[in-house]
Amino acid sequence: MTAPEQIQLENIADSDYEIFALLKQRYSPRIFKDKKITEQHMHQLFEAVRWAPSSNNQQPWRFLYAEKGSEAYKNIIANLTDSNKIWAKNAPLLMLTAYKKETEKGKENFHALHDLGMGLGAMTVQAQYMGIAMHHMAGLDYKEAQQIFNIPEEFHIVTAIALGYYGGELDDLPEKLQKKEISQRQRMPQNQFAFKNSWGTDHNM
Amino acid sequence: MTAPEQIQLENIADSDYEIFALLKQRYSPRIFKDKKITEQHMHQLFEAVRWAPSSNNQQPWRFLYAEKGSEAYKNIIANLTDSNKIWAKNAPLLMLTAYKKETEKGKENFHALHDLGMGLGAMTVQAQYMGIAMHHMAGLDYKEAQQIFNIPEEFHIVTAIALGYYGGELDDLPEKLQKKEISQRQRMPQNQFAFKNSWGTDHNM
Repeated sequence: MTAPEQIQLENIADSDYEIFALLKQRYSPRIFKDKKITEQHMHQLFEAVRWAPSSNNQQPWRFLYAEKGSEAYKNIIANLTDSNKIWAKNAPLLMLTAYKKETEKGKENFHALHDLGMGLGAMTVQAQYMGIAMHHMAGLDYKEAQQIFNIPEEFHIVTAIALGYYGGELDDLPEKLQKKEISQRQRMPQNQFAFKNSWGTDHNM
Repeated sequence: MTAPEQIQLENIADSDYEIFALLKQRYSPRIFKDKKITEQHMHQLFEAVRWAPSSNNQQPWRFLYAEKGSEAYKNIIANLTDSNKIWAKNAPLLMLTAYKKETEKGKENFHALHDLGMGLGAMTVQAQYMGIAMHHMAGLDYKEAQQIFNIPEEFHIVTAIALGYYGGELDDLPEKLQKKEISQRQRMPQNQFAFKNSWGTDHNM
């Protein structure tokens, strides 16, 4: 077993209840295999989003992606926060996500940001199915990115995502991040976020 | 083959590229099997959300659910738009979703709504795996719901969801909705939402 495979095994969620394998195995790595994502796989990723549900079927999600070596890739890197820049350059592909702010009828679409997230939830499962890791990043200068890529005002950039096949070497990371990469994943227990019949009562599940 | 099983087969997405079965089979029905969702399955649904990624691991998602026959269920129904009320009463379980507006440090969490969506993307896949359908609804009076359930100001209600095992009878719906239930699902093509290197150029994929 190679070291990255070992990391992936150690990162499997320590879930309280059994969940579907692709959800259990998913995590957000900072290292990736040095291999381009095939065009076919990119189409499959977008197809997964395409069939996600959205409010009034508005499909407000938008994506701009770029491969390592391209000018667009460099521009996405330039918009990341320093802490993301350190490792995101390991990814063979970077993506910006955005949503359309208004509905076709010109009304504010409050659910667009939520629907982008739902679509990305589907994309993340499809990616996991194909051995592709997605690391979602909130840390980016979205206004700067909006300007550099000439993205019209009617759209709002939300995240950058690093994508690549699971793999790579721990040595690709500075020591501090190596520790983070193999640290155990933590989540709050269910009774802090899921309530039956009334809000905030921890004990009724 | 029973009629509802036939509907489910006809609703499989007519995808341009092959996608993972659970994503392809998912749709948002208006009829459900007349059967309570087991407690074990509810825990598995929430566990799927629990391990979804979120900005700075803030896990801003919150859920309030109620079973048919309970006072809370009636209160959720009362907050739905008329067009949702007609069919949502077929569901053995209803849920409200919400997000925490601020981070632990008291700053606005712009990504909370997106992260709730990502969590629900994971929950939807887990549900599909267990034969449970989820119909997400934007149409509800969230302010009224917020008040009835005494949900603190620091949270924002986003959707109501109808949940139940796939099944039920088409006759449970008025004629107009029967047509909708078996109509073909439509989506825009990939080149309208996924762009390589630059924004909005339809032809470069």
